[in-house]
Amino acid sequence: MGNVRAEITMSLDGYVAGPNGSLELPLGEGGEDLHEWIVGARAWRERHGHEGGEEGVDSDVVAESVENVGATIMGRNMFSGGFGSGAWADDPNATGWWGDEPPFHVPVFVLTHHAREPLELKGTTFHFVTDGIESALEEARAAAEGKDVHVAGGGATIDQYLAAGCIDQLDLHIAPKLLGGGTRLFAGLGDARPALELLRVLHSPLATHLKYRVS
Amino acid sequence: MGNVRAEITMSLDGYVAGPNGSLELPLGEGGEDLHEWIVGARAWRERHGHEGGEEGVDSDVVAESVENVGATIMGRNMFSGGFGSGAWADDPNATGWWGDEPPFHVPVFVLTHHAREPLELKGTTFHFVTDGIESALEEARAAAEGKDVHVAGGGATIDQYLAAGCIDQLDLHIAPKLLGGGTRLFAGLGDARPALELLRVLHSPLATHLKYRVS
Repeated sequence: MGNVRAEITMSLDGYVAGPNGSLELPLGEGGEDLHEWIVGARAWRERHGHEGGEEGVDSDVVAESVENVGATIMGRNMFSGGFGSGAWADDPNATGWWGDEPPFHVPVFVLTHHAREPLELKGTTFHFVTDGIESALEEARAAAEGKDVHVAGGGATIDQYLAAGCIDQLDLHIAPKLLGGGTRLFAGLGDARPALELLRVLHSPLATHLKYRVS
Repeated sequence: MGNVRAEITMSLDGYVAGPNGSLELPLGEGGEDLHEWIVGARAWRERHGHEGGEEGVDSDVVAESVENVGATIMGRNMFSGGFGSGAWADDPNATGWWGDEPPFHVPVFVLTHHAREPLELKGTTFHFVTDGIESALEEARAAAEGKDVHVAGGGATIDQYLAAGCIDQLDLHIAPKLLGGGTRLFAGLGDARPALELLRVLHSPLATHLKYRVS
């Protein structure tokens, strides 16, 4: 059976999204800046059908992170790019903010309270799971057929899976930024804090890439 | 003129001390665990007059951190190991929790609201500064005679110097621990958040050592 890997980018002061998020600014103020390391990386651009981009550590990390992934899980906001209202869920034609050809190329399971038929886009089908994180993980594991399940965010979704003891590996990318507010990773763990073992560290000027075994 | 370097150890969820700190537990619950990387290091033990300890990355980082330091600044709690009450300040014989032979071997400037004569111990004199962080830095710079000034903590003291734009370099040691509460670094910056440039990364199983240029 594959591993369950959670992955997210965090500011040095612990935020995975900045303050004052909105439909126009889904990652909040300064949130986009955290992801400089990824959007310029050659492997990321390639996955999105673009040419060019930087080779090097950041690109290698992107390439490795999608290796052996058989299914992806994400929260509703990460699917929709929307904060709070759930407006997309009322529009069965809404395709999320990932465009007509999302970069996942594996089945994606979206945690939501709004039942909806699967959304088939070019190369990626989104499945909407309304009966909780364990159920979503079960479906994702079945779809992954022995490959890894990738829990892609946001922070609250990763916290839920960490607190439930479902994560085998945490890939954390620390951007050299201070956001001063927003959404904190680890804020939703309560007393269900796992032990971490540092497996590897890579870095570029744009991010420090930490890989932890979680137990 | 030397650099002003701030240095502190932080949990992965952003805490430099755990919750429920007290005189008996000055670093709070779990706070001691953050410092495993340092207390077992050969260079740290040597500085405290002990033999043995681990060689390797962590010890090299300790050795480097005390190189070229001409003066140290710390907050009152870091001097006293005490939380809140300031009891030590009412007892002119109190020597802090660093013992008769503190490991600093340079003049130490303690930020406090309680005036007190300098405290001369073997190899280290503590000076008590009551007129603010800029004044303490000025005194420390003069005492350092061109060497670096080391801002040793705690978190609130480092935040004040960061917010005031006084720090040239931030040495952050991230322990692979989740404390879930306590004292956060960066919480006191308000909108005075400096820009950071990653200079170097080293790591051991016990800590990831990040060095940032601050501007």
